[in-house]
This record gives sequence, structure tokens and C-alpha cells, in this order.
Amino acid sequence: MRISELGATTGVPVATLKYYLREGLLHAGEARGATQADYDATHVRRVRLVRALTGTVGLSLQQARTILQLVDDPGDDLYETLGCAVSALPPATTEPDPDDPDPYPLAREAMERLGWRVHPTYAGMAQLEQALAAASDAGLPMSDERLEAYARSLHDIARYDLDRLPGDDPAASVEYTVLGTALYEPVVLALRRLAHHEIAGRMLHPDAD
Amino acid sequence: MRISELGATTGVPVATLKYYLREGLLHAGEARGATQADYDATHVRRVRLVRALTGTVGLSLQQARTILQLVDDPGDDLYETLGCAVSALPPATTEPDPDDPDPYPLAREAMERLGWRVHPTYAGMAQLEQALAAASDAGLPMSDERLEAYARSLHDIARYDLDRLPGDDPAASVEYTVLGTALYEPVVLALRRLAHHEIAGRMLHPDAD
Repeated sequence: MRISELGATTGVPVATLKYYLREGLLHAGEARGATQADYDATHVRRVRLVRALTGTVGLSLQQARTILQLVDDPGDDLYETLGCAVSALPPATTEPDPDDPDPYPLAREAMERLGWRVHPTYAGMAQLEQALAAASDAGLPMSDERLEAYARSLHDIARYDLDRLPGDDPAASVEYTVLGTALYEPVVLALRRLAHHEIAGRMLHPDAD
Repeated sequence: MRISELGATTGVPVATLKYYLREGLLHAGEARGATQADYDATHVRRVRLVRALTGTVGLSLQQARTILQLVDDPGDDLYETLGCAVSALPPATTEPDPDDPDPYPLAREAMERLGWRVHPTYAGMAQLEQALAAASDAGLPMSDERLEAYARSLHDIARYDLDRLPGDDPAASVEYTVLGTALYEPVVLALRRLAHHEIAGRMLHPDAD
């Protein structure tokens, strides 16, 4: 297909597609004469990925580039690559002080309690530390019982997600992991609020029909 | 206690406390002479709530005021009040067009599939609609099977939360609901990412110890 058709198919303006091409975010089409090129399904897929990362997910082009490089070159250690790709997603976390032997004490204790084996400086640890500290500061510390209840349910969701990882295709695995993490997070939060609403209705308005 | 002690206890500068008092976000202390007032545990609790809402949760003073008014005057219908309070939290959603008979078709279908009875224009519906549409646009639509798996787990979390609602104290119920919704959402997302990391480690590095 021509670039105009690539634009129509993906809903991305041709000027933006040309920008992606210049920036190396999108691979060149197959040359058809001096001024035309031919695009295929791989371009459609890539444009959708770039648009999702820079639009919905809200990454800068530079942040998106980090993830696209991991899609293009996932390397030999998929576990490592998936961790790096997810760590490039918001929320931004600061690198821990390398001299601090215990940078995330609340998160570390939580992982020990749950028996989860995670890298002690994985970006998710910084995220959890900040979340637990904020809840504590506001006078609503996360109890061990609540931690365990939440963790059980979220582990089930994560297991569902990982069972569908296209593990024999590393590039597709990176795409699935990044988009599935970022795009389904708002679904998770909306469903929790709707479940609260649904249960509160049955508890507090038991006679409504 | 004096205002300086209220500041030391809550970690909020006295100038900020005076601002809260002027703005009516914090109730006056008991007068002790012409220029002094006495503050008690109700003030400590309120300052922590205002600080959590305007700090961690990120509300403007005007948005926080909406919630504080519901804490101060929860009215007769706790279900309605809790729904209003949570709807005042981010993310901001726009009111649906009152003439649109089906403003959130994807979210409505999801609720029908799950058999959840929710108000069709509850703010969580707008949130879910936007999340489902974004996932779909990015080429990763939420399948019915995934929706059901996520919903089951999040319903368990919501049930845990609601079982601990201090339902005989409406003001405390509003506080718990608002803070428990907003402060535990980052915990939920961090735990999902850490669960992914943990499961991916076992799947992809089965021999690591």
C-alpha cells in the first residue's frame, strides 16, 4: 500500500508517518520508483504501536524509542528485556542510590511476606515503596492482611496475562507485555471502582431492584 | 494542643494550617484567650485528610472541598454519597450528554456480561469506556474472557475493601472510601507489575535460585 493508504488504515496523518520515518521509529517501505514506497502489514502494526506508546500511554518519543529498540532487538534474555521494557513505562521512578543496601524497605518486606522473588531494584519496587509510604503517611497503612488479599487477586490477573505471552516470538512478547501492562492498567482501576459501586449497592440498597 | 503542636504532629507548616482555617477546610480550635486556640485529635485527623487529598491524591483545594463537604454532611443515603465522593477523584471524566441514551456502550456491555448492577452514568463507567476504547484502538481489545478473569479478581479486592467499611459511621465511611480508593490504586498497579515480574522469572528463568 502507499503511504496515504497506511495513513487511512491507521488513522495517522501522512505528515506524522513521514516524521516517524525520518526519526527511524518506522522502517522504510519497499522503494517503488524514486518518490514512492510500498508499505505492508508490518508497517500498520508498527504505526499502531508507536501511536499507542506516544498517545494513550503518554510516552515521549525518546521513551518510546527505548521500548521500540527492545522490540527490534529483544536479545537473548527475554526476562531481562521484558523487565527493561516495563521499567520504561510511567510512572517515572528514580534510580536507587547504589550505596544504599536497602533502598525500598517497605516493598522489600512486602515481597518477603508474599514470598515473591523479584529483583530488589526492579522499577516496580520503587513504585510499591512510594505507594506504601503514601498510604502510611495518610494514616491508612496497608495491613499485612490487606497486602496478602490484594496480592492473591493480582497474582491471578498476572498469571492470566503471562499465560498468554507469545513466548516463542520475542518481539511480539515485548509488544504484548508493554501494551498489556499500560493499556489494561486503567481497566483494572475502573473495574475496581465499579466493583466497589456494585457491592456498595447490594450492601446499602439491598431492596432496590 | 496549640497550633504549633498541631503542625509538629501532622508535619504541616503552621502557615498552611492557618490557610486551611481561613478557607474553612479545617474547623476552628477552641478559643483560649484572644489569640490562642486549642486543637485536638479531630484536627489532627482532618489535617491528615486535607494533606492526603491535596498532596498524594493531587486534588485542587476546590476538588478537596467537594469531598470534605461529603465527609461533614454525608446525608441519608450513604450509597449515593460514597458514589459522589469517589466520582470527585481523578481521573476527571466528562458528564455524558443527557440526550445520549447509550453514552458508554463498551462499558455497558461489560457490566451486562458481568451481571454487575451499576448506575449507567457512574463516573467509573466513563473511565472504563475510555480504557476499553484505548485498548481496542491500540489493537489489544479486552476479550470477554480477559474481562471476566480481571473482574473476578478485582471483585474479590473490592469485597475485601467493603467488608471493612465503617458503615455505622458515615463520615468515617466517606473518608475510608475516598482514601482507600485513591491511595491503594498505586499499590494495586505496583503489585500487578511485580507479580508479572515474579511469574516471568519462574517461567523464563526456571533454574535460577
